[in-house]
Amino acid sequence: MLDTTFIFDLASKAPTPGGGGASAYAGALSSALGSMVGNLTVGKKRYEAVEADTYIVLEKLAALRTRLIELVDEDARAFAPLAAAYGMPKATPEEQDAKDEAMQSALIGACDVPLEIMRSCAQVIGLCEFLAYNGSRMALSDVGVAVAFGKAALLGASLNIYINAKDICDRERAEAYTAEAERLIEDASALADTLYAYVLDEIR
Amino acid sequence: MLDTTFIFDLASKAPTPGGGGASAYAGALSSALGSMVGNLTVGKKRYEAVEADTYIVLEKLAALRTRLIELVDEDARAFAPLAAAYGMPKATPEEQDAKDEAMQSALIGACDVPLEIMRSCAQVIGLCEFLAYNGSRMALSDVGVAVAFGKAALLGASLNIYINAKDICDRERAEAYTAEAERLIEDASALADTLYAYVLDEIR
Repeated sequence: MLDTTFIFDLASKAPTPGGGGASAYAGALSSALGSMVGNLTVGKKRYEAVEADTYIVLEKLAALRTRLIELVDEDARAFAPLAAAYGMPKATPEEQDAKDEAMQSALIGACDVPLEIMRSCAQVIGLCEFLAYNGSRMALSDVGVAVAFGKAALLGASLNIYINAKDICDRERAEAYTAEAERLIEDASALADTLYAYVLDEIR
Repeated sequence: MLDTTFIFDLASKAPTPGGGGASAYAGALSSALGSMVGNLTVGKKRYEAVEADTYIVLEKLAALRTRLIELVDEDARAFAPLAAAYGMPKATPEEQDAKDEAMQSALIGACDVPLEIMRSCAQVIGLCEFLAYNGSRMALSDVGVAVAFGKAALLGASLNIYINAKDICDRERAEAYTAEAERLIEDASALADTLYAYVLDEIR
């Protein structure tokens, strides 16, 4: 029986888990599909030549999955100070200053987490490149699903960076966030598209 | 504490859950994000004019989510007869005939489930169109994440249709499967792209 707690928590009007945590979760699903392909590759005579490398890929995917699962919760924890800052009073100049300060610090946290989600997903997609060209042919379609999810997670997490970076007063810092998000999308989502197209071409 | 059973089941070398079930799961996440946006829209003075329609969208999303969760298991059940058919003996012409027959019937089942996953995801993306333009502006980025996941689920499920349709002897039937998969991708993933671009443009 499938545990649907996360799905139903997501559907509720509670602000977390939201799009950020869901993106970390989708990244974990992507790494899991990559691991399945790796696990179907090792121990087979036909793939003996790539077995040692596949074990390394499997270890890296497992570490990224552990981190992405942690990031589901970290995304929720990064949202709490933001919500608290929104709720602070601003009747006096002192209150306004304190609110602004709390808000700026919360916005940084709310960019750091989705950026780490994006970096992790980009790495998962990179590891899928090895699996697409060297992994078990029987599971090639699962590599295609993995990169489709990795790309969706990347795009999903980026939206939280764009939203929060917009309100960061330190423009240099804000632009560093959005520039890295854009670069990750440009590189890793292009690789995801290439790999998906390769899989589609091979299986049809 | 996040339940990670599905993620770890996916990572194992067991053939199910695999890319098909994961796609149904991602579709359920997509519908859940849409529901979150709807739930943040209803009961607010600002969105009073769209409240009745939003309740209808919420009901449809909940029904699609229930169905997609069932399809996670149905995808696994559709794989069992396929695996059994692969394992049947083919030493005599009679055995070969019996094996071919079992295989053809299993391939149909293994196309029907991902096609229903695709249809459901296309409907989720369609409902997200209403939410993008009428739902709570506070949760607009979550609509963007929802359509990114819906598209990934659509693409993921299509791979299982292409793989299985290739081996179906009834070519008319096989081509009907792939034609519908292609049409769903063409229409619903174009809509997903349009909505994602709209969200990105609004929030930046």
